Amino acid sequence: MPEPLSITPLEGLPLVSPGDDIARLLVAALRRSRIVPVRRDIIVVTQKIVSKAEGRFVDLTSIVPSARAAAIGEQVGKDPRLVEVILSESTDVLRCSKGVLIAAHRLGLVMANAGVDQSNVAAGSADRVLLLPRDPDSSAAMLKERLDREFGGDLGVVITDSFGRPWRNGVVAAAIGAAGLPSLVDLTGAPDLFGRRMQRTQVAVADAIAAAAALVMGECDEGIPAAHMRGVPVNGAPLPASALIRSAETDLFR
Amino acid sequence: MPEPLSITPLEGLPLVSPGDDIARLLVAALRRSRIVPVRRDIIVVTQKIVSKAEGRFVDLTSIVPSARAAAIGEQVGKDPRLVEVILSESTDVLRCSKGVLIAAHRLGLVMANAGVDQSNVAAGSADRVLLLPRDPDSSAAMLKERLDREFGGDLGVVITDSFGRPWRNGVVAAAIGAAGLPSLVDLTGAPDLFGRRMQRTQVAVADAIAAAAALVMGECDEGIPAAHMRGVPVNGAPLPASALIRSAETDLFR
Repeated sequence: MPEPLSITPLEGLPLVSPGDDIARLLVAALRRSRIVPVRRDIIVVTQKIVSKAEGRFVDLTSIVPSARAAAIGEQVGKDPRLVEVILSESTDVLRCSKGVLIAAHRLGLVMANAGVDQSNVAAGSADRVLLLPRDPDSSAAMLKERLDREFGGDLGVVITDSFGRPWRNGVVAAAIGAAGLPSLVDLTGAPDLFGRRMQRTQVAVADAIAAAAALVMGECDEGIPAAHMRGVPVNGAPLPASALIRSAETDLFR
Repeated sequence: MPEPLSITPLEGLPLVSPGDDIARLLVAALRRSRIVPVRRDIIVVTQKIVSKAEGRFVDLTSIVPSARAAAIGEQVGKDPRLVEVILSESTDVLRCSKGVLIAAHRLGLVMANAGVDQSNVAAGSADRVLLLPRDPDSSAAMLKERLDREFGGDLGVVITDSFGRPWRNGVVAAAIGAAGLPSLVDLTGAPDLFGRRMQRTQVAVADAIAAAAALVMGECDEGIPAAHMRGVPVNGAPLPASALIRSAETDLFR
């Protein structure tokens, strides 16, 4: 009988503030849950707590919107100061329409509002927004290093965020940062069951891990920003989450 | 301590042929795995075994490609008979380029090749392709009815397929059929942690279930076409997977 894959939400993490040591908070949460991570276990955390710990807040009262930001703000019905922050995080605006601004973040991630977040940012500060971590793969690598040292294992770390999608309703979580696991697995040329040569197929493993963890964490700010996962049958050399970003040249939907 | 979510691959299912009773095969596989499903457990199965059981094969030798299929076949480098089948399954072609044909299936699903599948279809028959189930939500509902009767529980069923995505590399599994669970959960207006009113957010729960199960099933035809999932904390009225299909009018990427 195969061991099941298991996913446990890590409850009781405190609200995170700039400078907080997330690794330490995760170690305490794992201890409280009586989980001792072993080799190949994966710790999943939300973008939000990583960004908060990294102090990625922007105070909108300090922002003077450009004419372009004002025009887009008018078009989409968003605060022009927020639009200014979104534009400053982006390399490209893909779509604007009422209530929707889809942009390519400088990391390459195509997201609503370039990942700039207004919900659950801080109490009593409607003017504070939160940017993505500066370099989520590095953030994941640093977390992994700390957790590996603590538990003596070779762990995986995935940092998630919620993504809307063309053609389908609803958000799903995907990986914006990863360390210690192959974010993308290439099945190119592996034979299928009947020996036919498979066409080139790559599997977005880290995105599936993010989506799976979100089932217990709650996709949307329900207050469980981390999970522990055991039994994901992944093999292969580690690849960061940046490998999941499709190059603009091979993208038919820009 | 919260119970972890668990996902167990259901091994040992035989290759499925037209007319096979998948419910019976799943019951046997669950028994072999010593799993007795209880209320709210979810059984996940791939499109492929559902389509096979429903006899959704097309013999390409019987297909005469239209001029349009021949032209598109030339453009994308695919067998014009296969393109003819894809077109006959579709309401709209979104993109064609070398090796890529992205179409809106008449069910509304936007997929590579409109979900028409050439891999792992049958031994020794390169000319046989497999269509999506005729009505995957109905297929899921029928499976649920049979499984509920067998186990006396109120189970969930999800039918998955692999989807490529704009902007991101790699496929992930998503739900093309579902029964007994809310495929889409609406968080519109729920307050965030700090009492701010959340913007309209819908969560694609059935897609996350599909992606999670694919971690143990293998995304690509590795021979484990079903999984059992326990502990998914979903509440709300059941909604079929068709609720996940974004209407063309609200879609900015057609």
